[in-house]
Amino acid sequence: MKYRLLAPGPTPVPDSVLREMSQTLIHHRTDHFERIFSECKDGLKWLLETRTAPLVLSCSGTGAFEAGIENFLSQGDTILCITGGKFAENWLKMSACFGLNAVEILVPWGKAVTESQVKAALASYPEAKALVLVASETSTGVRHPFEAIGALTKNHPDCLFVVDGVTAVGVFDIAPERHNIDVLVFGSQKGLMLPPGLGFIWASEKAWARARESNLPKFYFDLAKEKKAQTANQTGHTPAVSLIMGLKEALLIMKSEGREAIFSRHLRLAKAARAAASALGLELFAESPTEAITSIYSPKSLEPDAIYQGLMKFANFTIAGGQEQMAGKIFRIGHMGYVDDIDLIGVFGALEIVLKKLGYEKFSMGASIAAASPILKEGFR
Amino acid sequence: MKYRLLAPGPTPVPDSVLREMSQTLIHHRTDHFERIFSECKDGLKWLLETRTAPLVLSCSGTGAFEAGIENFLSQGDTILCITGGKFAENWLKMSACFGLNAVEILVPWGKAVTESQVKAALASYPEAKALVLVASETSTGVRHPFEAIGALTKNHPDCLFVVDGVTAVGVFDIAPERHNIDVLVFGSQKGLMLPPGLGFIWASEKAWARARESNLPKFYFDLAKEKKAQTANQTGHTPAVSLIMGLKEALLIMKSEGREAIFSRHLRLAKAARAAASALGLELFAESPTEAITSIYSPKSLEPDAIYQGLMKFANFTIAGGQEQMAGKIFRIGHMGYVDDIDLIGVFGALEIVLKKLGYEKFSMGASIAAASPILKEGFR
Repeated sequence: MKYRLLAPGPTPVPDSVLREMSQTLIHHRTDHFERIFSECKDGLKWLLETRTAPLVLSCSGTGAFEAGIENFLSQGDTILCITGGKFAENWLKMSACFGLNAVEILVPWGKAVTESQVKAALASYPEAKALVLVASETSTGVRHPFEAIGALTKNHPDCLFVVDGVTAVGVFDIAPERHNIDVLVFGSQKGLMLPPGLGFIWASEKAWARARESNLPKFYFDLAKEKKAQTANQTGHTPAVSLIMGLKEALLIMKSEGREAIFSRHLRLAKAARAAASALGLELFAESPTEAITSIYSPKSLEPDAIYQGLMKFANFTIAGGQEQMAGKIFRIGHMGYVDDIDLIGVFGALEIVLKKLGYEKFSMGASIAAASPILKEGFR
Repeated sequence: MKYRLLAPGPTPVPDSVLREMSQTLIHHRTDHFERIFSECKDGLKWLLETRTAPLVLSCSGTGAFEAGIENFLSQGDTILCITGGKFAENWLKMSACFGLNAVEILVPWGKAVTESQVKAALASYPEAKALVLVASETSTGVRHPFEAIGALTKNHPDCLFVVDGVTAVGVFDIAPERHNIDVLVFGSQKGLMLPPGLGFIWASEKAWARARESNLPKFYFDLAKEKKAQTANQTGHTPAVSLIMGLKEALLIMKSEGREAIFSRHLRLAKAARAAASALGLELFAESPTEAITSIYSPKSLEPDAIYQGLMKFANFTIAGGQEQMAGKIFRIGHMGYVDDIDLIGVFGALEIVLKKLGYEKFSMGASIAAASPILKEGFR
């Protein structure tokens, strides 16, 4: 069977993006590259609804997170990290690693942080220099209320609101200026429909003012240097040119679909996936689900990871299992980026056959499609 | 005219590598990816003649340098940096930035370090934890005697020999185990014939032992974590999958040409380039030239960068001008990676026409080709 990628990332890459990436390689110190880079900046500003473009880094998402810490914080700073998933916990580990006083706002995996938790933490730690939130937690499938938390941190002028937007940007509406976000980081291999290899970071004026005081060592991720270079459509270090060529094309595709249409497609696919899973008698893991992925408990009667591995073995699909404390207990279907209604029908059709093969019989064939179709119908216009 | 890239990097990428990079994107947590990654490791071991594979990082060369410092050194360590070019000076700046006691072994741009200089420095700083050398300095076109220096540092058991092999690996014979190198870093966009976006770092057992003592903060570039993951054909962070797909193909091309043939091609092109430039009455800049690029003084009668810009404007060639203290004074032709004899004839043919158009008349048309051809003839077998 054809290879199909419906993972929580990397996500499928459109053919025209792959073709763009395979154009003759150009040098980055050329007008041609600068035109491409300038178009990318415009596209990213359009997507984020910002006046300034995010910086483009040659690294994966984690590299961009590290850049966020190294540039906007200083040794000994108190940083509040909202956890509740593997990627949120990475921020906590990374903050400790760089000598910050990292305080955890503990959230159980699968649940979203509450406004009152954040309010209490901000009150207990008035010295906090930053609050970190993963808007859409890839390891659990939870969407956290970043909009409400942005409104809270707005009243704490010393505290930067740092948002990990890795499975948020290009999936749902996240506009850092409107949502009071000071630092937004994301990667290429999710909503942006590119292969991995580019990291992005956008910062508010408040964050840039803070950057001038930062005393953490930085060289590869020196963002002041990057900002200066990228304002002139160049980069501080040799950029991943082919991925940037692909980015230009990916943003053109996104523009032609439109922001609202992109966001409502993701919402529709997420609703359909949840309805489909429920129709199979499966239990959803995330209480407040993101539009990017759907995380589903694996029936206890099955071996750990049997579903994830079965879809791979029998149908050549890559979805994902659980991570860390949820390893073997859940499986996760990605439906972000270059994924449409028919892809969703395909993965649930395959899932039904695989479940039956594995001996899970609590549904009649077609049940998930029957539940998803009325929702997906909205996409047929 | 067709676009032609003969810069000191990025270098041209073979069509089959571009095609490989534009295959359907696969997920990295799959057997398919692990097979590709394993083949890459084997190819890199073949190229470097090492028992262990270098680690593959998603970043440009500078990121791999930073990884070298963060992992194998500690705050306050004395590090000897041999300078003599922009990239060597970067190591000096980076070492200072990470709190090392960075000592410069000053070399004038265009010249190579001498053994006696290094001997004296090692004697003056017996506490030195590392000696850094850029094997082939891209900003000047100088090749430093890394083989002789490796033999020297061998007798200093506390001092790691760190080599920046960015325009060396895949260009000439550099085999870290044989050359007593402890840390070797390089990037994808030079001798490896790939677009930029991957950094590589190989370390000796002596260096890995040192890594256990390192107290510098690291997260994205935590090499112990990478080593563990890459031993199992995975990566510590999401890898730049498409570039790794390209790497597999690039290494196959290199294997089919053969190490010796690759190295003698680069030597032949470099000799031919020097003969060609001299035949035009132009003066060479580097005293001890690398096989990767040829750096040539721009005639004083011409405007700064007139040659570099003229080749771009009239013939759609990207070569390079000078950097920093040599800006406007030299131009540099890259002839490494996917570059052959006919490419070299092409760039000198174009250079002759451009020089005449610019009013530099001290040669007869065809003189550079006449000088290069007897050398290039060796490549016609």
